[in-house]
Amino acid sequence: MPKQILVNIRLSEDGKSVIILDQRLLPNQIEYIECRTPEEMYDAIFLLKVRGAPAIGIFAAYAMCVLSQTTPSALPPPLQGGELRGVADYLISARPTAVNLKWAVERMLNAEDMRAEAFRIHEEDITMCKAISEYGLTLIKSGDGVLTHCNAGALATSRYGTGLGALILGAEQGFNYKVYVDETRPLMQGARITAFELMNAGLDVTLICDNMASIVMQQGKINAVFVGCDRVAANGDFANKVGTSGLAVLAKHYGIPFYVFCPSSTVDMNCKNGSEIVIEERSGEEITDLYFNKRIAPEGVGCYNPSFDVTPAELVTAYITEKGIKKAIES
Amino acid sequence: MPKQILVNIRLSEDGKSVIILDQRLLPNQIEYIECRTPEEMYDAIFLLKVRGAPAIGIFAAYAMCVLSQTTPSALPPPLQGGELRGVADYLISARPTAVNLKWAVERMLNAEDMRAEAFRIHEEDITMCKAISEYGLTLIKSGDGVLTHCNAGALATSRYGTGLGALILGAEQGFNYKVYVDETRPLMQGARITAFELMNAGLDVTLICDNMASIVMQQGKINAVFVGCDRVAANGDFANKVGTSGLAVLAKHYGIPFYVFCPSSTVDMNCKNGSEIVIEERSGEEITDLYFNKRIAPEGVGCYNPSFDVTPAELVTAYITEKGIKKAIES
Repeated sequence: MPKQILVNIRLSEDGKSVIILDQRLLPNQIEYIECRTPEEMYDAIFLLKVRGAPAIGIFAAYAMCVLSQTTPSALPPPLQGGELRGVADYLISARPTAVNLKWAVERMLNAEDMRAEAFRIHEEDITMCKAISEYGLTLIKSGDGVLTHCNAGALATSRYGTGLGALILGAEQGFNYKVYVDETRPLMQGARITAFELMNAGLDVTLICDNMASIVMQQGKINAVFVGCDRVAANGDFANKVGTSGLAVLAKHYGIPFYVFCPSSTVDMNCKNGSEIVIEERSGEEITDLYFNKRIAPEGVGCYNPSFDVTPAELVTAYITEKGIKKAIES
Repeated sequence: MPKQILVNIRLSEDGKSVIILDQRLLPNQIEYIECRTPEEMYDAIFLLKVRGAPAIGIFAAYAMCVLSQTTPSALPPPLQGGELRGVADYLISARPTAVNLKWAVERMLNAEDMRAEAFRIHEEDITMCKAISEYGLTLIKSGDGVLTHCNAGALATSRYGTGLGALILGAEQGFNYKVYVDETRPLMQGARITAFELMNAGLDVTLICDNMASIVMQQGKINAVFVGCDRVAANGDFANKVGTSGLAVLAKHYGIPFYVFCPSSTVDMNCKNGSEIVIEERSGEEITDLYFNKRIAPEGVGCYNPSFDVTPAELVTAYITEKGIKKAIES
């Protein structure tokens, strides 16, 4: 496969739309879409056309920039009157768990020059990812087996990524790693996006089903677990894609270090501990209809589809932020 | 959904074929197929048209009965000469992990009246399942939350099942349980078959993705984990559908009892411990092409697809056999 560097989010030339890579279609189709109205922005987030906590923050910043110029009549009925606060809350409501969405929107509301602030948020993310990736690189050596879950690469952020950043940066520097990629049901971000990004970077990728993490750890194939995160509470409990807490329990059982890559923008000091993090629940059809396609389960079956789970701080070996590698979250 | 009792395996009226429910098509289609030749028998097992360790044993018994009457010319080239031993080894090679296949085939080879022996194996399984289910019933109370993985119900056995037997028998007696069903990637036996069987039995079913087991345990929804098994070693280590060992680790972490339902026919005293159990590896396409349908992962991606994993004895709360509830496997 040829190397492809894909830009996932950008402001259009005229500043009247945000252009995003539709991540639902990866890896089969590379397709860009334009978001102009609040509803299109909301849907882009809610339907996971744009995803990954830092990427959602960047998108929301550009979205606020575009929408700050929108005429009131373009807003949906509950937001009539055109107050930007209403639009902001509407966007924030699209996905409740990740903190970056709220963080970016609030920052934009307080900005004097929204266009400059949106570009600043984007630039800061690039700098942050690079720093996190460099710190992460010190945790592994070439040839190591690394297990990852969901997608915390460039497409979930700006460049390199958080959880995948060290692997991609390392590959650029000539190292190799055996990366075991959880497919990440129900929406297959691991199979569709992480496998795609890591193969593009030239890494040795092995795709597994989520329930195979235990056997690969048991067999000694995994030297470290690298995951991103959507929100870290003040005590270090953190929310990430559902399944992460199970990996942390397994890693502890098998004596494997478990690393959380969390830019400062994902730390929510207003949230005391994991019990205060709202877990988004999505439609059961994401489970019963295999990736929006083939019905697989009996009609009428009950489903529980939490998008995230909370991993307690005591299962975390270290947090990697743009400021360094820390044993605990610092206020 | 109306209650449906489906017969999964039977000898044809004329004794010249084995008729099975094609479990790959469940729950969308109820379709029976006839197996007459060794290749059809092999494919039925290899392609999981018939599945579940005890059901494979019953099928193999009827298959040996049918094939003992086959003319040599109907056998594939490597088996020319018509020796039943060759056919036996060919069938046994279809799936290496479950012990029941080998157990049933060897028993048939030693039988004087093969037809009577095949019916006896089937009858014994029905009696065994009933006994296991009654013992299992003592482990839970009405209203309990039970997590299960893959399918260990009537379709994997003869009646009631092993891991699901207590739940189905309990439902017949007017009890209810909140059953959390792991969908069980890659072949979705939980979503397709377990959910179908338990809904038919009138139980309260919640389908989850395999990576959601940790969050439902963490939330206190699970009082017990019930799983079947494909082979138990003499020291109590056992093989079951991949993902089972991870559930056992999670159950221990969250303080939830973990029960293994294993008829005597799955105990292999010739196998000292789990390291001697051969783990079947299947094609990566089972992972990359969602249930034989939609390609989801990048072309060329590496995959690892073990069908089973081994759970060490120390993670098992108790083994439930047709002889009772045991803390350890007895010779």
